[in-house]
Amino acid sequence: MEEKVLKAIQDEYPEDFAWCYGCGRMNEHGHHFRTGWDGEKTVSIYNPKKEHMALPGFVYGGVIGSFVDCHGTGSAALYLHRKNGFEPGDGAEPPRFVTASLHVDFMKPTPQGTALKAIGTVHEIHPKKYRVETEVYAGQTLCAKGEVIAVVMPDTFTSN
Amino acid sequence: MEEKVLKAIQDEYPEDFAWCYGCGRMNEHGHHFRTGWDGEKTVSIYNPKKEHMALPGFVYGGVIGSFVDCHGTGSAALYLHRKNGFEPGDGAEPPRFVTASLHVDFMKPTPQGTALKAIGTVHEIHPKKYRVETEVYAGQTLCAKGEVIAVVMPDTFTSN
Repeated sequence: MEEKVLKAIQDEYPEDFAWCYGCGRMNEHGHHFRTGWDGEKTVSIYNPKKEHMALPGFVYGGVIGSFVDCHGTGSAALYLHRKNGFEPGDGAEPPRFVTASLHVDFMKPTPQGTALKAIGTVHEIHPKKYRVETEVYAGQTLCAKGEVIAVVMPDTFTSN
Repeated sequence: MEEKVLKAIQDEYPEDFAWCYGCGRMNEHGHHFRTGWDGEKTVSIYNPKKEHMALPGFVYGGVIGSFVDCHGTGSAALYLHRKNGFEPGDGAEPPRFVTASLHVDFMKPTPQGTALKAIGTVHEIHPKKYRVETEVYAGQTLCAKGEVIAVVMPDTFTSN
């Protein structure tokens, strides 16, 4: 049985903010990462494409980094949305975040042909800044650990 | 005039190791990042595609992370290759590296429509492990700073 995130925060972003190559549903060429709650943890699931390889048989680290990145901003958005009293599916417009920093430790070569699962824990640094710790699994194997510092999208992103 | 890396380390990888989605010349869907020397610094130049956006007008951080990643492994390969007495174009097979960790600080929103230039400095940690500090510019603007820990490719990548 294929695991799937049912209610994803990215499904709630307004169209203008849904073009991200990582997680925007409007970007036809993108990865379409989707992030939802699983209890107090956040979860994204992704099936890399065949071409997303480092070597044949192993997933490219840059795609894992992208996965950690959007899982981080999505997780921070889920967290602040919940703090504001909302859940994905409520129809309320969620906050949008950008990545201030991205860190990934690659623990083991990540096999191709297996769904990747990112599991995140969100820590509030201050009301507009969150730290998201993420573990990326291929099956039962912990392949990467990541950390994203996500901040509420500043005006410079929309006024430049 | 368009800047271009003339002699790139990735051009020298044997075909079996040239499939990376980031920097493999054999991967028709990939980014084809290419890294060469500029004096004692390493340089990669990349023109993100239109779809590589965070929002319309701004480059997606995951692609910048991928750029830093492959620039890091390519820079480490250049460094060790030179230490071994070789330069790209000599026809000698260069060492291949994998990424142990990737860190990116996003300093400013990165505009689309401008070539990105990664400039790297390589530090030897020990003979099989290097730290590559990278600055990513869009024109004159420093958009991101990155750090990659690159290690000589372990046997687990080819024997798993």
